[in-house]
Amino acid sequence: MKRFEIGDWIVANHAARPTGVGKAWLVGAGPGRADLITVAGLRALQAADVIIYDRLIGRELLDEARPDAELIFAGKRPDHHTLRQEEINQLLVERVQAGQQVVRLKGGDPFVFGRGGEEALALRQSGLAYEIVPGISSALAVPAYAGVPVTQRNVATSFAVITGHEAAGKASSQTDWDALARIPTLVVLMGVGQIASIAQSLIAAGRDGQTPAIAISQGTTDQQRSVRATLAELPTAIATAQIESPAVIVIGEVAAFHDQLDWFVPNGLSGGLVDDEPVPLLAGVAVAQG
Amino acid sequence: MKRFEIGDWIVANHAARPTGVGKAWLVGAGPGRADLITVAGLRALQAADVIIYDRLIGRELLDEARPDAELIFAGKRPDHHTLRQEEINQLLVERVQAGQQVVRLKGGDPFVFGRGGEEALALRQSGLAYEIVPGISSALAVPAYAGVPVTQRNVATSFAVITGHEAAGKASSQTDWDALARIPTLVVLMGVGQIASIAQSLIAAGRDGQTPAIAISQGTTDQQRSVRATLAELPTAIATAQIESPAVIVIGEVAAFHDQLDWFVPNGLSGGLVDDEPVPLLAGVAVAQG
Repeated sequence: MKRFEIGDWIVANHAARPTGVGKAWLVGAGPGRADLITVAGLRALQAADVIIYDRLIGRELLDEARPDAELIFAGKRPDHHTLRQEEINQLLVERVQAGQQVVRLKGGDPFVFGRGGEEALALRQSGLAYEIVPGISSALAVPAYAGVPVTQRNVATSFAVITGHEAAGKASSQTDWDALARIPTLVVLMGVGQIASIAQSLIAAGRDGQTPAIAISQGTTDQQRSVRATLAELPTAIATAQIESPAVIVIGEVAAFHDQLDWFVPNGLSGGLVDDEPVPLLAGVAVAQG
Repeated sequence: MKRFEIGDWIVANHAARPTGVGKAWLVGAGPGRADLITVAGLRALQAADVIIYDRLIGRELLDEARPDAELIFAGKRPDHHTLRQEEINQLLVERVQAGQQVVRLKGGDPFVFGRGGEEALALRQSGLAYEIVPGISSALAVPAYAGVPVTQRNVATSFAVITGHEAAGKASSQTDWDALARIPTLVVLMGVGQIASIAQSLIAAGRDGQTPAIAISQGTTDQQRSVRATLAELPTAIATAQIESPAVIVIGEVAAFHDQLDWFVPNGLSGGLVDDEPVPLLAGVAVAQG
């Protein structure tokens, strides 16, 4: 159960670096479950001087930071003052200019509804070095954790991903529901609050109300819950089951595979056998550099 | 440079398991670069009795197997006899029934054009246990490695993913080009051979031939190459630049971000500073279980 000690390696590696050369890593933390971060992402996290992190980042990931690393919360919560995007960009630039190794830790993937593009632009326009470290997107992994493949031979050979915020927000008139209604699998991120209007728009655009659908909240974590219904009935099903944000919605024939393929047992095993003791998600993970 | 020794931990952990209880892990290896595997995927790989792997899996990943693990190649190459999907399903079932810990290692993500759904169905129908370990999909990570975010605020707020095989194959008459032409970002996997007909179909369906586009071959690896063009000119540009499969194509305004945001230097650094020596991608990665 005890965590493997890695401090010596990282500190030694860090000390060997030339000082004064800063760089940013825009790292995808993945969909919520700590062990779905990539090895490259974990490495960057363990080496960073500064970690600027969002809401919905697994606490276990922050435990991987160097003891002397600075952790800065940049997420958005209704009840807290948080950094605006421009402030985050500015912070990134300042820290890299100061010669620090900066990890920008973002939920999911930094380039999938993550504003990673805006942060990369800010860094590039200041002439600073960065790397993109892709993360597992909730759009794909959350369905997988509910037994739903976004593609399946002879069932769905393409998929599209949208966000509920965009669909219902000021850009709603630009959302092409006619097109989206004709893609076999539609994945909606952050759509629980707008599900009634999304379902209505899709059905009005010709999507069959009997199309299988599923909503999955807090997917991949031990709080994962889901509800299966038809597209037409999904808004009511979500309300009844009290499915809340963050949630991923899948609309399409593939959603019905949940009924056969659902496999994840929240609070159950992780990577081991049924009889194993549950272990911390990143217990014993050690990454040396070089 | 030397690889950290982890054999003792894994063997000890493995020996502690009850014998005779088999299980399969359908693991996404990611887009080609070894360190883009997840921590959960690496853990499963390091613990497996048997690894059934596809083509396009980084050799470094197989080096992570236990010394006594059995490695079975199940990929498809024109010049080799390989296993058909039904044979792979059967092999998976047999090995799990025999009580083995079986890792099915697949390129990208097992549930994104990976036939993972078919393998999970075969296991479920035999009453066997499995887990899905998501992988970084080439559809998202390869564009990121070329500086292309598949979404960008005020530019593209949705994206769709298709394969060239499907688009040009027997299902081509079912491909809804009218719908695909209207999604802001279109990602095409395995589309280099069919790019002329794909471009033609999209333009015929109303997509502007001046839309920015990019093709990226062997993305995320040290052999990464790319070519930028307009949609109309992309087929010629791909031929001229001799971009070959495996490749990812992105069509949409976001492709133009490559011109500003491209950052990856093949054969350059990995996770370190410019002056660092390149290191093996998984050097020193140690994962203990429990």
